Amino acid sequence: MANMVQPVITLTTDFGFKDPYVAEMKGVILSICPDAGIVDMSHHVEKFNVRTGAYVLASASSYFPVGTVHVAVVDPGVGTRRRCLCVQTRRGFLVGPDNGVLALAARAEGLRQAYEITNRKYMLANVSGTFHGRDVFAPAAAHLANGIPPSDLGEKIRRIVVSKFAKVLKTKEGISGEVLHVDDFGNIITNIGEHELAALKGDGILDVRIGRSRFMLKFCKTYGEVGHREPVGLAGSHGFLEISVNQGNAAKLLGVRSGDNIMIYRS
Amino acid sequence: MANMVQPVITLTTDFGFKDPYVAEMKGVILSICPDAGIVDMSHHVEKFNVRTGAYVLASASSYFPVGTVHVAVVDPGVGTRRRCLCVQTRRGFLVGPDNGVLALAARAEGLRQAYEITNRKYMLANVSGTFHGRDVFAPAAAHLANGIPPSDLGEKIRRIVVSKFAKVLKTKEGISGEVLHVDDFGNIITNIGEHELAALKGDGILDVRIGRSRFMLKFCKTYGEVGHREPVGLAGSHGFLEISVNQGNAAKLLGVRSGDNIMIYRS
Amino acid sequence: MANMVQPVITLTTDFGFKDPYVAEMKGVILSICPDAGIVDMSHHVEKFNVRTGAYVLASASSYFPVGTVHVAVVDPGVGTRRRCLCVQTRRGFLVGPDNGVLALAARAEGLRQAYEITNRKYMLANVSGTFHGRDVFAPAAAHLANGIPPSDLGEKIRRIVVSKFAKVLKTKEGISGEVLHVDDFGNIITNIGEHELAALKGDGILDVRIGRSRFMLKFCKTYGEVGHREPVGLAGSHGFLEISVNQGNAAKLLGVRSGDNIMIYRS
Repeated sequence: MANMVQPVITLTTDFGFKDPYVAEMKGVILSICPDAGIVDMSHHVEKFNVRTGAYVLASASSYFPVGTVHVAVVDPGVGTRRRCLCVQTRRGFLVGPDNGVLALAARAEGLRQAYEITNRKYMLANVSGTFHGRDVFAPAAAHLANGIPPSDLGEKIRRIVVSKFAKVLKTKEGISGEVLHVDDFGNIITNIGEHELAALKGDGILDVRIGRSRFMLKFCKTYGEVGHREPVGLAGSHGFLEISVNQGNAAKLLGVRSGDNIMIYRS
Repeated sequence: MANMVQPVITLTTDFGFKDPYVAEMKGVILSICPDAGIVDMSHHVEKFNVRTGAYVLASASSYFPVGTVHVAVVDPGVGTRRRCLCVQTRRGFLVGPDNGVLALAARAEGLRQAYEITNRKYMLANVSGTFHGRDVFAPAAAHLANGIPPSDLGEKIRRIVVSKFAKVLKTKEGISGEVLHVDDFGNIITNIGEHELAALKGDGILDVRIGRSRFMLKFCKTYGEVGHREPVGLAGSHGFLEISVNQGNAAKLLGVRSGDNIMIYRS
Repeated sequence: MANMVQPVITLTTDFGFKDPYVAEMKGVILSICPDAGIVDMSHHVEKFNVRTGAYVLASASSYFPVGTVHVAVVDPGVGTRRRCLCVQTRRGFLVGPDNGVLALAARAEGLRQAYEITNRKYMLANVSGTFHGRDVFAPAAAHLANGIPPSDLGEKIRRIVVSKFAKVLKTKEGISGEVLHVDDFGNIITNIGEHELAALKGDGILDVRIGRSRFMLKFCKTYGEVGHREPVGLAGSHGFLEISVNQGNAAKLLGVRSGDNIMIYRS
C-alpha cells in the first residue's frame, strides 16, 4: 500500500439535495473506491449556471490536499456532443463536462494535461442520456482515486473549453470587469484583482459603476470599519474586489446580479 | 478484524439543515460506530412526504456498496404505535419507521427479512416521544454497522407497511400511473416503466394527460433533441418515464405535483 | 500511534451551501489533518444569528464522541477586535469567535479552560479580514485534531463572552423565558426546562402567553395525542418545553419568532 491517506473526492453540482442525484453519485464512488472521503463542495450552484459552478470550484480547490479529485457537474448540455473531461493539474484532477465549468480551476491549479473520457470500461454499464454525473464522472473520479492513470480514461486533447468570464479590460477611463458571483450574504464578488485597484484608489475611495448605479465606495480591511448597513469595498477572501454592506445585503441594495458589468473609474 | 472497509450508513430525512436534528443523529452514530462513513442522501425530503422519502431512498440505494445501512426518517407518526423497522435486504439493511418509507427500497433491494426494533439495549438510554431518528434508528443503524445480527434488534415480523404509490394500471385505453416525484429541476418522474411504453409510442410520440393537461409528447434520448424550453419525454435515469422541458421547469409549466395521476393513451 | 480512531471535526456556520466558504474550510482541515472525519452540523443557521448557532451547537454536541472538535462560525464581528476562541471542555474542544456562539455548548459540555487563538503558526499564512473560519478556526481545529495541546494556540483567558439567551425568570405569576429557536417544522423551542413546568401544570394544561397570544396548551407525550393541526406542548428532544402543532407549523400559526418572550402562568 503506497498511500495510507484516504483519497479525497469533492463534488460541486447544481443538483440540490431534494433529489437522489447527489446520493447516487456518492453510492457509485463508494462502490468503486470504498475508502474515498467524499466532500460536498456545493450542490446549490444555480441551475445551469456554469459560471457560478466554475467560480465555486476554483475558489475552494486550492485549499484541498494534493491528489484531490474534484468533480463538477453543471451540465445543461448533457446528452449532446459536449465532451466528458478529465484535467490533470499540478495538484490533482478535475472531472466534469467540457463546457467551461472546469476552466477557472484548471487555470488556478495549473493545467498539465486534458483527456476526453471515452473508455466505457470506467463508466457504469448503462450510461443514461441524462445523468453523466453518476454514469461517467463519478466512476471516473473513483477510478482516479484508486490510482489509475488518467490516460486510461481516454485520449489526450489539446484544448478545453475556456469561458469568457473573468476577463478584465483596462482602458483610459479605468477598469471594466464583471460580477463573478453574488454570495449568500449578498456580497458582490468581482473578477477585479486587488493589485489592479492600486492605481485607482484616491484616498481609499473608489469611483464605481455597477449596472445603473454609480457611487463612491470606501475601500477597507474589514466590514467593521464602516457603520451598520453601510457599503464597503474589500479585498475579499480570494484577493478580488468584493463589495459588501456591513450586516446587510449589498446585491439587493444595489440591484446587482452575477454576470453584471462593473466599471471602476480613475480618480 | 474481518472487515477493513469502513461501514457506510446513509441518511434520508425531512429534517432540513437548519436544526440540530441531523447532527444529533450523526453524533449518535459516531459514538457507537466511530469508523462509520456517514453519507447524506437527502435531508430535504418534503416535510411528512413519505412517498418522496421512499422514492429518494429507493432510487439511490442500489448504487451503494453491499453491506450499506440505509436510514430513512420521514415520520409523521413518531410517538404513535407505528413500529420501528429494520429490513434486511439482499444487499444490506434499511432502518426507519414502518410507514411505507422503506417499502420501495425493500422491493428494489430484495427483502429477505423484517424485524421490529424493540430491544432497548440498542436504543439511547432516554427515548423521547418525538425523535426516534436519534433515539432508536441512528443507534440501531450504528450497531448493525458494527456487525450485530439484525435479530438482536427485535422479533421477526411477517409484513411491513407497503404503500400504494407506484402502482400502474393497464386498461383498454392505455396506462394509468402517477407522478412519483417532481425533482429540483422541475422534471416530472412517473412510476411508468420504459418497457411499458413500447406499445404506446406511435412514431415516438406519446399521447399524455396529467392533471387537466392533455398533449402530445416527443419521446427522445436526451434533453438536447428538442428546442430550448420544449417539453420532452425521456427514460429517466431510473428507467421510468420522465417528462422534462429542455432547460426549463416542466412541473411549473404543466402545473404538476407529486402524486398527480398520469394517463398515457394508446395511439 | 496512540489513537487509531479518526478524529471528528464538526462544522456549524451561517454560510449556506451556495458559496465556496464551507468547502474552503473543509479543504484547509483535510490539508492539515488528512484523516479527519468532517461532519456538517448545520450551515443554515440564520445569517448573523449567534443565538441560533449557539443553540444548534449546544443541542448536538453532547451526542458526539469524546475528543470531538466542534467549530462554530456565526461571526458578524469578523475583522473587529472580538477574540478568536478555543474552549477545552470535559468532552472535547469548541473553536470559534468569542461572541457567545460557543457559550451554551461550553456550559453543556463543561468548560475546563479557554484560550485566545493568537499563534500565527497555527493559522493560514495569509489571514484575511473577512474569513476567520477558513484562516483561523479551521486550521486551529485541524491542529487540535492532530493532537496539539490547546495551550499552543495562545494564552489562557479568564472569561468568555456569555450571552443572555436562555435565562429563565421565576415570579409570583409564573415563569418567564424566551424562544430559543423555531425549527424547520415550525416547532417553537423555548428555554424553559421540563422540570420547571411541574408546578404549573393544572391537569396537564398550561396557561401560556407568547407575543400577543395567550392560550391554554395541552401538555402531552407525543404529537399524535392531539388531533391533526392541533397545538400541543411537549418536552422536546432536549428536555425543554416545545410548542408544536400536529402536522402543522406552530410558529406560523402563533406568529412566533426566535427571541420572543414566553410566559407561563401559575394555574
